[in-house]
Amino acid sequence: MISKLQHRRSGRTIWFAMSVAATLCCASVVVAQTSPISTGPVDPQLIEDLVAANRILADQGVLDGWGHVSVRHPRDPNRYLLSRSRAPELIDAEDIMEFDLDSNPVDAKGRSLYTERFIHGEICKARPDVIAIVHTHAPALIPFGISKVPLKPVYLRSAFIAAGIPVFEIRERAGMTDMLIRDHTLGRALADALASHPAALMRGHGAVIVGPSLQRVVGRSIFLPLNATLQMQAAALGGPITYLDPEEARKIEEREGYGLGRAWEAWKRKAMAKH
Amino acid sequence: MISKLQHRRSGRTIWFAMSVAATLCCASVVVAQTSPISTGPVDPQLIEDLVAANRILADQGVLDGWGHVSVRHPRDPNRYLLSRSRAPELIDAEDIMEFDLDSNPVDAKGRSLYTERFIHGEICKARPDVIAIVHTHAPALIPFGISKVPLKPVYLRSAFIAAGIPVFEIRERAGMTDMLIRDHTLGRALADALASHPAALMRGHGAVIVGPSLQRVVGRSIFLPLNATLQMQAAALGGPITYLDPEEARKIEEREGYGLGRAWEAWKRKAMAKH
Amino acid sequence: MISKLQHRRSGRTIWFAMSVAATLCCASVVVAQTSPISTGPVDPQLIEDLVAANRILADQGVLDGWGHVSVRHPRDPNRYLLSRSRAPELIDAEDIMEFDLDSNPVDAKGRSLYTERFIHGEICKARPDVIAIVHTHAPALIPFGISKVPLKPVYLRSAFIAAGIPVFEIRERAGMTDMLIRDHTLGRALADALASHPAALMRGHGAVIVGPSLQRVVGRSIFLPLNATLQMQAAALGGPITYLDPEEARKIEEREGYGLGRAWEAWKRKAMAKH
Amino acid sequence: MISKLQHRRSGRTIWFAMSVAATLCCASVVVAQTSPISTGPVDPQLIEDLVAANRILADQGVLDGWGHVSVRHPRDPNRYLLSRSRAPELIDAEDIMEFDLDSNPVDAKGRSLYTERFIHGEICKARPDVIAIVHTHAPALIPFGISKVPLKPVYLRSAFIAAGIPVFEIRERAGMTDMLIRDHTLGRALADALASHPAALMRGHGAVIVGPSLQRVVGRSIFLPLNATLQMQAAALGGPITYLDPEEARKIEEREGYGLGRAWEAWKRKAMAKH
Repeated sequence: MISKLQHRRSGRTIWFAMSVAATLCCASVVVAQTSPISTGPVDPQLIEDLVAANRILADQGVLDGWGHVSVRHPRDPNRYLLSRSRAPELIDAEDIMEFDLDSNPVDAKGRSLYTERFIHGEICKARPDVIAIVHTHAPALIPFGISKVPLKPVYLRSAFIAAGIPVFEIRERAGMTDMLIRDHTLGRALADALASHPAALMRGHGAVIVGPSLQRVVGRSIFLPLNATLQMQAAALGGPITYLDPEEARKIEEREGYGLGRAWEAWKRKAMAKH
Repeated sequence: MISKLQHRRSGRTIWFAMSVAATLCCASVVVAQTSPISTGPVDPQLIEDLVAANRILADQGVLDGWGHVSVRHPRDPNRYLLSRSRAPELIDAEDIMEFDLDSNPVDAKGRSLYTERFIHGEICKARPDVIAIVHTHAPALIPFGISKVPLKPVYLRSAFIAAGIPVFEIRERAGMTDMLIRDHTLGRALADALASHPAALMRGHGAVIVGPSLQRVVGRSIFLPLNATLQMQAAALGGPITYLDPEEARKIEEREGYGLGRAWEAWKRKAMAKH
Repeated sequence: MISKLQHRRSGRTIWFAMSVAATLCCASVVVAQTSPISTGPVDPQLIEDLVAANRILADQGVLDGWGHVSVRHPRDPNRYLLSRSRAPELIDAEDIMEFDLDSNPVDAKGRSLYTERFIHGEICKARPDVIAIVHTHAPALIPFGISKVPLKPVYLRSAFIAAGIPVFEIRERAGMTDMLIRDHTLGRALADALASHPAALMRGHGAVIVGPSLQRVVGRSIFLPLNATLQMQAAALGGPITYLDPEEARKIEEREGYGLGRAWEAWKRKAMAKH
Repeated sequence: MISKLQHRRSGRTIWFAMSVAATLCCASVVVAQTSPISTGPVDPQLIEDLVAANRILADQGVLDGWGHVSVRHPRDPNRYLLSRSRAPELIDAEDIMEFDLDSNPVDAKGRSLYTERFIHGEICKARPDVIAIVHTHAPALIPFGISKVPLKPVYLRSAFIAAGIPVFEIRERAGMTDMLIRDHTLGRALADALASHPAALMRGHGAVIVGPSLQRVVGRSIFLPLNATLQMQAAALGGPITYLDPEEARKIEEREGYGLGRAWEAWKRKAMAKH
């Protein structure tokens, strides 16, 4: 626990350093926080990837009509990109908006916003290493969030689970709520539970999954529910289960991005052909 | 039990009050009950929504060829709208018919009718708060109807289950039958079992699900079977399950409609693109 | 057992009576059994229904590349119609061939035949009440064929299971084989196991399902595996299961065909749109 | 164990005999092993079948973005054909490359290669009877690879399982790794575990499946995971399971190829229609 806190503290130090330039040139944002100034146009390729990430995860059954995907702004770590309030499978480039880390939109143009956008802002604040974030309600994750059985890695592609997948129990932080991450306080509580892990289950709700790139977080979002299904099946078969060894997981994680582009090409082609 | 009866009685009081105007202008209906007079054309948007509700639930695997969806007439609480006897995925606007609460069609034009339309008429009579009704044979619900394990809410989107989902055992009311709701008496028996609940399982048959709008009843019809599947999986994992707390469920229900339009847009686009 | 035998004997009596005319005009068949004379063209609507039955069951996941569907010839109970050796989802009207009850093709035109066509011929001989026959490898049926747990009716649409679904153990009749129904002897052994039942599981192989019409046998072929899945899920939930009462099943069966046309329309539209 | 080693030794003897001609005319390959000379163009029908095998197995859910299929060169047993590094569902004829048995490409043309191509080269060396090889991550196989429950044949089409499906535990051969078959040594270790069997599970990773033709290995790759699912379901039902008898399995295997063409036609039509 101490080492995690230290990790997070050092993380924050890095983040403060990284964001100095951005903070200086965005001083006015602090004054008029509800209407921050845009950092300027983003590489269309990144927007295309963010649209693809949404549609891939909808096509793979990972995102229902309420999930979302964000990516940190490539030129300003104090900003992130996220769609207006829309079902992931319908998102187009024009739906992507820029937010500051307090989850205020740069230029809402009257568009409605995801209620739970604070998930993205608060995790971006707490985790400078994180570039992309997925909030999902993938069905296979729910049984693990509501039971006492921990998710453990049983499959090569879900080796990141070896880092531990905590369960966020919103009751412990906020008592009885409607369970949505509706504000900064709840967003921070979720970020605290996530700590330095690659994902956190949200009891009775879903999960948040983070990663160092859009491709990595999309891969993790596909393989976390798959691992859950496989673990349920292996448990039902009975007898001892051989999980990935922490050393195996570490070696796989070092190369986790390796070859992701091959699957991404197929996932994207299939998902984008739908509309 | 007493409180339920009281609730239903007060419900009926409200309903009598609500339907005074309609009853006055529909007096002739009582005389010629088998051929009631039409209340007049309905907003085409409502018809489109009813068609979409049928096709969405077929596309989502909730309705097979024999399920149906009704909506109460917007200008006359003594009438409801329901398709002629047709598989939900094939229904078009021209298939929608008007029925009185004794489930007589206003203008059958020789079209065949759902045998079990009495489900809709009798629940409309007993539950003035109900605007839309789904009758489903969703497979995931059958195991709960035939076992003694009660459905309980494990997932945010199915918080309405906290109000209790009774099981309708037709044998207790009518002995050995072919299990279809073929007349007013069986329809009333089902409405009695439903009481003030959002849904009732029908043993060995399926369920009836009700709601205050088409969008709400479609959402409930998708998340009731999903909750059933998740609860079965969590039970198989073993150990204690954390269900939604009644207070959490109440807070979620207050806002259940919030954001449903976002999923509805995606569900509808997908379902309507099929034909 | 005695009543079953009596039933089958009386069935055979009926069949002998029914087929007198046909037998008289087909006397030459006995002489040149390997090349029987055609009974003449069949109503194209029946051929279309047989093609649709094949494609529907493929589309519904009931038939893989090796399943088949037959229908008795409408004018000659000593003949049946069956496709040449082809995967069900690819069958067209021109693939349908006429066979005598010894499973000799009327006019093979060099086309290859299903190895297991003897299933159809021998059941047609033994069961004059049967009009249509499906041979399936539906996955959900396999676990019941290889375990000691009997299939029992848990769902309205599978009430026919109440008549009992025997398991055909080919070892008891023929020792160690390649498990295919390759000849008359094996076909007769299967027909014996089926006796007067609506279906028989074939251990480690699949099932044969029969009915009084194509629509009925298609319905039964969809709901037999569905019942198997639901029964497995209910068993996993634990505790006592409420099966259909024999009296309920009898009343449902009296009307089993009722409303099948509604689902057939949707199944057919979906399946035929694929090619 | 002794008989297996003997079998493999005699297998190698056959292979050395078979490949004498090829080895003689390919002597230069030994010198410049990283750039072997092409054996010349291959029958376009074989290339088409290899492309179809990739797409069929992707369409059937057996191959994800990282699986692969190879076939031995028809004129040179020292060569095999395999796609460049690409997701199976996207593979076209131009993606197919020729490799020597050390898994060096004949003419890479700058194309990237599958990291785990050594699976194919080393099994081709060790198993002269093998013509086609599949490497899969089919989800249903993972639970058996990580538990102690052995896969056993429960279904006619998976009779080849009776020959035994060993589990390859990479830790026993190489300690803690990233679990990929990255070189000749690991490829040989996997081939050793496979020995003379038709398939080997790879713990926490997937499986390798081999066969005497592309059609056979595709069939085995579809029915191995299906058998896994059926066995899990039968185990969950409880009680004793009737597996295929070794004699039944032997008789089925003698004819395993029988009728595969019928399913292949349907599988291929469906898979190729996707792009």
